[in-house]
Amino acid sequence: MVEQTGPDRPALGVKQALSGREALQIAFHPRSAAVAGVSIRPKATFNGMRWFKMIRQYGVVQRFYGLNPRGGVLRSGTRLYPSLRDVPDEVDYLISVIPAHAVLDLIDQAAEKGVRVMHLVTAGFGETGLADRAALGDELLRRAKAYGIRLLGPNCMGVHTPIGGVSWMEDADPRPGRVAMLSQSGANASEVVMRAQPRSVRFSYVASYGNAVDLNESDLLDYLADDADTDVVLAYLEGIKDGRRFVPLARRLAARKPFVVLKGGATEAGGRAAASHTGSLAGSAEVWQAVVRQTKLIEVTSNDELLDIAVVAERLGGVRGRGVALVGRGGGHSVLAADAIARAGLELPPLSETTQERLSAYLPPAGNSIRNPVDSDVPWDSDDFLPALKAVSDDPQIDFVILQANIDNLPAGGSAADAGFEEGLRDRLLSAATEVSVPLAVVLRAPRTSAGVDLGIRLQQQLGDAGVAVFESVGACALAMRRYLDWRTATQGSSSAGASTSAGLQQ
Amino acid sequence: MVEQTGPDRPALGVKQALSGREALQIAFHPRSAAVAGVSIRPKATFNGMRWFKMIRQYGVVQRFYGLNPRGGVLRSGTRLYPSLRDVPDEVDYLISVIPAHAVLDLIDQAAEKGVRVMHLVTAGFGETGLADRAALGDELLRRAKAYGIRLLGPNCMGVHTPIGGVSWMEDADPRPGRVAMLSQSGANASEVVMRAQPRSVRFSYVASYGNAVDLNESDLLDYLADDADTDVVLAYLEGIKDGRRFVPLARRLAARKPFVVLKGGATEAGGRAAASHTGSLAGSAEVWQAVVRQTKLIEVTSNDELLDIAVVAERLGGVRGRGVALVGRGGGHSVLAADAIARAGLELPPLSETTQERLSAYLPPAGNSIRNPVDSDVPWDSDDFLPALKAVSDDPQIDFVILQANIDNLPAGGSAADAGFEEGLRDRLLSAATEVSVPLAVVLRAPRTSAGVDLGIRLQQQLGDAGVAVFESVGACALAMRRYLDWRTATQGSSSAGASTSAGLQQ
Repeated sequence: MVEQTGPDRPALGVKQALSGREALQIAFHPRSAAVAGVSIRPKATFNGMRWFKMIRQYGVVQRFYGLNPRGGVLRSGTRLYPSLRDVPDEVDYLISVIPAHAVLDLIDQAAEKGVRVMHLVTAGFGETGLADRAALGDELLRRAKAYGIRLLGPNCMGVHTPIGGVSWMEDADPRPGRVAMLSQSGANASEVVMRAQPRSVRFSYVASYGNAVDLNESDLLDYLADDADTDVVLAYLEGIKDGRRFVPLARRLAARKPFVVLKGGATEAGGRAAASHTGSLAGSAEVWQAVVRQTKLIEVTSNDELLDIAVVAERLGGVRGRGVALVGRGGGHSVLAADAIARAGLELPPLSETTQERLSAYLPPAGNSIRNPVDSDVPWDSDDFLPALKAVSDDPQIDFVILQANIDNLPAGGSAADAGFEEGLRDRLLSAATEVSVPLAVVLRAPRTSAGVDLGIRLQQQLGDAGVAVFESVGACALAMRRYLDWRTATQGSSSAGASTSAGLQQ
Repeated sequence: MVEQTGPDRPALGVKQALSGREALQIAFHPRSAAVAGVSIRPKATFNGMRWFKMIRQYGVVQRFYGLNPRGGVLRSGTRLYPSLRDVPDEVDYLISVIPAHAVLDLIDQAAEKGVRVMHLVTAGFGETGLADRAALGDELLRRAKAYGIRLLGPNCMGVHTPIGGVSWMEDADPRPGRVAMLSQSGANASEVVMRAQPRSVRFSYVASYGNAVDLNESDLLDYLADDADTDVVLAYLEGIKDGRRFVPLARRLAARKPFVVLKGGATEAGGRAAASHTGSLAGSAEVWQAVVRQTKLIEVTSNDELLDIAVVAERLGGVRGRGVALVGRGGGHSVLAADAIARAGLELPPLSETTQERLSAYLPPAGNSIRNPVDSDVPWDSDDFLPALKAVSDDPQIDFVILQANIDNLPAGGSAADAGFEEGLRDRLLSAATEVSVPLAVVLRAPRTSAGVDLGIRLQQQLGDAGVAVFESVGACALAMRRYLDWRTATQGSSSAGASTSAGLQQ
């Protein structure tokens, strides 16, 4: 081992190191924090100022300090400290946004100060593939163990905890939600959080944990399985550090909450990329598939699919079974949507005679189009819209309704020139969601114009805020629903909604 | 058979009916046209005014006439005629936008006038599943045959022919291109044309042919295989009217030009929807797969995938082989993109020692990230960007480069506040496309904000107009490229670009 080159032996020793759960409790809810590498030069690529500002902005962590080797005073009058030793307070959470060569000195200071958890944005260790960089990382970890400091990272963005008041995301919705995410990639975590926003999906805790030399995905699963703030767990994983620890923890989590995983590096080429990204050994596709089977986690293949399942779990979780009614749009759109539902593994049962009879009061006499899909010629602004939808939802074979709301027939140029259009459509869809007798999913496909996208995002947000499940396509909705139902069947022994999803049923 | 109830026997008889090719030549290039059902009430759902206006707007067809039972004069001073009999000119192309009950009278008038092709927007025949409606459709077809009039439809939007000056699409780019589309669904055809617009994909001929009781997909394949205006043929098919005619025509077409098909009704549920949409018998999935194999058409599963292949064929058609270099973005994005490339069936060969050496002059010392994918830390606005890209493209194993251009790091709020950002990025990407030594595909993934989408669409359009291939995701690009290369290998015996794609090599 490399000889310890740090200063005086710190007060804290190995025996005082926190457990993974305790460490994550600190990371998600720090009592006091410091950010090393706060620069007033806005151009600095990785600047601690970002984390410093976000802590100030959230205002939850009252005691926080910025470090800069040259000291200085911010425009706000806040003083920057040249060293952690100069901070006149205890610090339990330290964020390092300094160059790799300076981290050994910083962790020595941290040990003296009694820091319990150190998050390193700092990169340039084992993931570079360079021997001297890897050795530096090894020495960092050795000292952390010696000092009883738990590490998050290095090479990661850390935590986004609207509840605890720490974040790297300047544009994220500051309101907490009940979905958690762990991600080996900060960029993927950011993308998921930002794409969640127009869908009104909000987060309890997000952790970008990078190289995971100490705290890793297993610690996060352990924490989140028991976390009362979290109902659904999303993950982007590249490698698994310790499969024997991961599998039982993942199984325990998946038995309690939907645990949805996007696996990066599932191919040889992707695995090579993962190795250079976070130094991960992505493992073979076969091993990963065995993990999926053993743990009953829900596997997906894109960031958007992660969110689709969160939307299903949060808003359609009470669905009875696999029978879908597809309503709206018509023509080739309905044909392709019906194909997508069938391919996803759901059913599109023909509506009963009784239902068809009820429907014929509202729909034109064009025979088959009221069987299922219902190629409704009833526009959303007609008085027949809600009764027709209600008739469909009352059919005993129908467990939920997917409504394709047509918003691409905007006037030329793509603007919702009719001022009443947006409000009218929104109100009608909100009524639909509450009046139908089974869960309703709304598919809004906006035209790819500025006005169309704006309208789509606004509608999605307004509906989402009211608890309506909104999707970008029928196929995405159906696939997420099928995966969710598969998970429910696998973990709770039946696809019925009778069993609660929150009770821990199995170990 | 139903007794002929029409008026005096028309001048034209069976022996003068046009062949499918001749009829389509008239539909795509009418010398004179009439639109029945031109109403000045803007609220009418299907109003011939739309077609009438578009003919006037294109200005290619000089002689065209509007019909309305009550006659009348448009604000422009143009007279509407109560009957085709009143039109003081020959008419060879007639568009029917009148109710179904009136079409028999209209076709009788058409016969007297010498109309050669009648397109029926009019719906409500066999596709309703109602016996009296089906009988009406049968009588229409019987008279058409007796009169020697070829029918397009019924229940369809007809042709969009920027060259010939007829269209139903008010918002479509009026400039002709070299991609054709046939579609049993007018809505799908419209969606493809509208989504093609920001990608700078333009059309020679688009035909929505609905119930296809007379002219059908086989006639269109026959026409387009020999059409000098068309390089690529896209199709949305629900049913195939005559498989024994279709297969050899599809094979002949696919041997000459990429023939890309989205099949609707491929599942039982989708087939039921297709039956009620266009009265089509969608056939079994097995039969369809046999057709795909026998004809070497390229099968896709969405409208966007149709366009992706058009972009590959038009802009990357000269690609040498399957070796991809992936450049840009980095982190989890690159890992997932590498997975997507591998899953699509392309290769991501590690860059040679020589290439890595050249790259190390421009890239930071983080070892593996210059192998492939190249997780470039070289921003597009650095002087090192083009030399680094050039080095990658010079690698002998690299057949084309996919560049992930990062446009989601816009300033907070999503606006491109830096005025030079857009022009700079565009110019740099244009330089990249011309300076690299292999074909370049650009992936732009815009943030889902109004400003982000606007910027994405503008950049896509500017790059597309300059002939650059732009895609929404690495996966979409890779999948389209692999399908294109499979087609090229299957039809031309090798995946090399040596063989021309325009010469008819096989029957």
